[in-house]
Amino acid sequence: MERIKGKSIFEGIVIGEPYLRKKKVLNIKEYKIDEADVEKEINRFIVALEETKSEIRFLKNSLKGKINDDELKILKVHLMVLDDPVLLSEINSGISKRLTNAEKVVDTVVGNYIEMFSKLKDPVYRQRALDIKDIGEKLINHLLSEKRELEDLDGKILLAKEVFPSELLKAHHKGIDLKGVVTEHGGDTSHVAILAKALKIPTLMGVRGIKQMKWEGTIILDTRKDNSCVIKDPSAEVLEGYIAEKNRLNQQTKEYEKLRDLPAETMDGERINLYVNVGGNLDLEEIGKQCPEGVGLLRSEFIYIDSEFFPSEEKQMEIYERVYKQMGGDGKSLTIRTLDIGADKNLDYYEMPEEINPSLGLRGLRFTLAHESIFKDQLRAILRVAHGKNIKIMYPMVTNLWELEAAEEILNDVKAELRAEGKTFKEDIEIGIMVEVPSVVLLADVFAQKVDFFSIGTNDLTQYILAADRQSSEVANLYDGYDPAVLRAINMLSEAAAKYGKKVSVCGEMGGDPMAILAFMSFGIFDLSMLSAFVPRAKSIIRNVSLEEVRKLKDELLASKDSEEVREILKRSLRGKL
Amino acid sequence: MERIKGKSIFEGIVIGEPYLRKKKVLNIKEYKIDEADVEKEINRFIVALEETKSEIRFLKNSLKGKINDDELKILKVHLMVLDDPVLLSEINSGISKRLTNAEKVVDTVVGNYIEMFSKLKDPVYRQRALDIKDIGEKLINHLLSEKRELEDLDGKILLAKEVFPSELLKAHHKGIDLKGVVTEHGGDTSHVAILAKALKIPTLMGVRGIKQMKWEGTIILDTRKDNSCVIKDPSAEVLEGYIAEKNRLNQQTKEYEKLRDLPAETMDGERINLYVNVGGNLDLEEIGKQCPEGVGLLRSEFIYIDSEFFPSEEKQMEIYERVYKQMGGDGKSLTIRTLDIGADKNLDYYEMPEEINPSLGLRGLRFTLAHESIFKDQLRAILRVAHGKNIKIMYPMVTNLWELEAAEEILNDVKAELRAEGKTFKEDIEIGIMVEVPSVVLLADVFAQKVDFFSIGTNDLTQYILAADRQSSEVANLYDGYDPAVLRAINMLSEAAAKYGKKVSVCGEMGGDPMAILAFMSFGIFDLSMLSAFVPRAKSIIRNVSLEEVRKLKDELLASKDSEEVREILKRSLRGKL
Repeated sequence: MERIKGKSIFEGIVIGEPYLRKKKVLNIKEYKIDEADVEKEINRFIVALEETKSEIRFLKNSLKGKINDDELKILKVHLMVLDDPVLLSEINSGISKRLTNAEKVVDTVVGNYIEMFSKLKDPVYRQRALDIKDIGEKLINHLLSEKRELEDLDGKILLAKEVFPSELLKAHHKGIDLKGVVTEHGGDTSHVAILAKALKIPTLMGVRGIKQMKWEGTIILDTRKDNSCVIKDPSAEVLEGYIAEKNRLNQQTKEYEKLRDLPAETMDGERINLYVNVGGNLDLEEIGKQCPEGVGLLRSEFIYIDSEFFPSEEKQMEIYERVYKQMGGDGKSLTIRTLDIGADKNLDYYEMPEEINPSLGLRGLRFTLAHESIFKDQLRAILRVAHGKNIKIMYPMVTNLWELEAAEEILNDVKAELRAEGKTFKEDIEIGIMVEVPSVVLLADVFAQKVDFFSIGTNDLTQYILAADRQSSEVANLYDGYDPAVLRAINMLSEAAAKYGKKVSVCGEMGGDPMAILAFMSFGIFDLSMLSAFVPRAKSIIRNVSLEEVRKLKDELLASKDSEEVREILKRSLRGKL
Repeated sequence: MERIKGKSIFEGIVIGEPYLRKKKVLNIKEYKIDEADVEKEINRFIVALEETKSEIRFLKNSLKGKINDDELKILKVHLMVLDDPVLLSEINSGISKRLTNAEKVVDTVVGNYIEMFSKLKDPVYRQRALDIKDIGEKLINHLLSEKRELEDLDGKILLAKEVFPSELLKAHHKGIDLKGVVTEHGGDTSHVAILAKALKIPTLMGVRGIKQMKWEGTIILDTRKDNSCVIKDPSAEVLEGYIAEKNRLNQQTKEYEKLRDLPAETMDGERINLYVNVGGNLDLEEIGKQCPEGVGLLRSEFIYIDSEFFPSEEKQMEIYERVYKQMGGDGKSLTIRTLDIGADKNLDYYEMPEEINPSLGLRGLRFTLAHESIFKDQLRAILRVAHGKNIKIMYPMVTNLWELEAAEEILNDVKAELRAEGKTFKEDIEIGIMVEVPSVVLLADVFAQKVDFFSIGTNDLTQYILAADRQSSEVANLYDGYDPAVLRAINMLSEAAAKYGKKVSVCGEMGGDPMAILAFMSFGIFDLSMLSAFVPRAKSIIRNVSLEEVRKLKDELLASKDSEEVREILKRSLRGKL
């Protein structure tokens, strides 16, 4: 038995057969072609080019809404390179002038590019070198009519030196059930890592010496954060332990499901309002199952990402109507967050300005205020759908009061327009803001007098309070939502809002986290929005505690000096409650 | 008379003669060379290449310490491109295979690159296209032994469609007195803008239609923020007004100088401690003139930036000794901030990890904790120099307590080593931290129990509290140190520190700002560190107010709802005091 450590990219436990990929040597022969056959050869290349492009486009379209735009961007870059006139003309002239077969010319030209880019010190070029390498292989594969044996991966754990993004996408698209991935190369921010997370494939990276080892029989891939490793030739005892652990996890999931129709009420009778977050069509399918009080956060950007261009008022109305129906209609509430692009979220059809630190740049409300007509279309759609319904508006990434006033002015203009057109709409719609920028916490009393409700976006708030990019592996040790500074900020906001009678909810990732739920409840936050899948677990916790007991945690949490202390307190309180 | 508006890059008023640059057409002839002359021609190219490289290297070295590393990076990229083997071999083979003269080959090859890069949609490539264009021109200029007539610019205001970074650098280096720059292209973050700021040249960008106008006689360039414009054919009245304004500004500067030897004491006898910031050799020359209480912030990274490699303990000791002497030695204090690289500051000889948001990444103490031997060398140097002197250590970019504990452990190790070696050093050195990350403000009471003093870095603190990159023109409207959220944070920190008897100083850009000085004093912050040049103005303000009166501003400032209100309050209080 051997345990080999690695960096967890997506958590899970997999027990299964390994598939070790040897380095694939593309067998590219060089041969001369007749002058008369040049046109035919160029045609061969064009067909391969078109096949490659339509394959990428196909992947791109079929994955829209299922993966986020970051992942789509990879495919966009690939398409861009395939349209690069310099590259294409070099290949064309290679065939016609050197009278050489297409695959060899592609190989040479692509090789030159890779060499050129790799020699430059700039990491951006190095990334491009990888992209071009990927594309070159695709083109040559098509020319050789050779397909990767994806079918062999079905039901297996793939072990390889490196994996290409396109492989994961293709496997996913073809319905290949790839159980897990283990690679030597790659890190948390690589394209493959982003994809593995989006596709929920348990993945371990940075595992050394994979190719030097023999992989046979059953292996165990344990990518849970605390103990991530791949286990070769597991002993019967270890294997049994893992099987038991997997069963336990499955059992727990079943227990949680039983809570579906019970209320989220503490032992001493305090009702906690649970909402769900919706960020794409997949989530939308889920909300029929678990959506106690409605949708606490509709990330409307998914509508924009799924579209070919900024969606029309009508198209938006149709989708908002659909969400409202799907969640169960009247009696529940739907909070629509206005378009939140920028930082790591972009649109195919709109080029964002290049910024050195996009997470500190033009995003959320900052973007929509700078693009009034896009903003107005969305506000019109929401106002009209909201007529007679429990629908609210929420602005993302609010920084100062002027933005709020500017948004209010635009909203009033839109209302006046709708009135003039004789359209029905919700006059008295509630307006809330996301709490992500630390300034909102520091000025909470001022904002509380201006808004109807707050919703805390824990991911961004944590990132700014700790000045640590949540996507950077370099500062992963600093980014921590349980840092007492973050908890103090959340409590400050909650206290200021309470003073003015304004509701506070949490809709960031922590909203569904068992330990965090206790912390929020101790601060008097009784509205939580989370992924539908986390609702049963949240109910289980809430139904097993008394608010009186939870309230006592507050002072202790706020006096903690680091996140370890915070975790100790919360773990202790959760013991036996999960 | 005509006023043409533009975006101010560096503030000032210039009254002078215009120099309109027509597009320079390089006269590149194509001619064939004999096979026998190929070597000679390649040699011609190599000579030009070496000349270009040594010119860039010369600029790079002579400007080190005068401009920051961002600007140096431009030159580094240029050198990198000139070393690119693909580019060089293409030029070589162009000469030897096509038997064409070097300048024509360079022109063609560079042209191909530019075309290639310009067609790609990625803005990074577009920037590279500009760099390559710049380099191509330099190479051809050298081949043609043709120099730009920089001398013509002496004493003039340059008007041009665009200006190359190398032109500004060269002019500066040759001692050409370029009074001002007006361009159609470029923005706040362009290389040229960065340079113009570093070289303190009043500059206006984004001015339309320059080339279509006739520029003669005397023009006025007013790049002060509120009213930035260039005035063509000014009326006698306007010209007179500007001359008077310039005189007034000059007069004020002279008045300030008279305060040099007077203390910074309020009318009711409260002493404010003024320190200076030192970030390079230029600053070091200045501190002999104005440095009342010592150096409040020695940005030690300039020593690293000026070196060919991480500077040795001995080299560092030499420089710290020099700074201590230069500021006036005993009786004053020197606070050395440990290496703060990352974000926008990099080292030639060390490749930082590529991050999506470098300002939220590996920088400051985060970097030195991850590179213990670099950190230890610096701590050794400081501890040894500090023996018997009033020298303090300050850590940049502190986020949580663990970092502080890790730094403490390393410091203790270093002390133990020095003790074992029998070296003398300062045992009881004071340790302070920069307040830049919002978490330090939120946990100020916890940190106050761990450190000897705090120093507020207003630039970064503002950037994180408002989640607005201070270098991005896209969110320039949000980045504002007078935002009440920032002031509340500063006050929170000051109150918590006072509770534990710990000193707070301000060493960010706002430390030297007249309005901000009043705000800080109202919060009970009596230690300010600023550029030496701002000390006289600060003295003038402090000597014209009473602390009792300033204290009254506190509640009003903290109750402000936006930065306009804050500015109103401070402007009102400053009236007649400047």
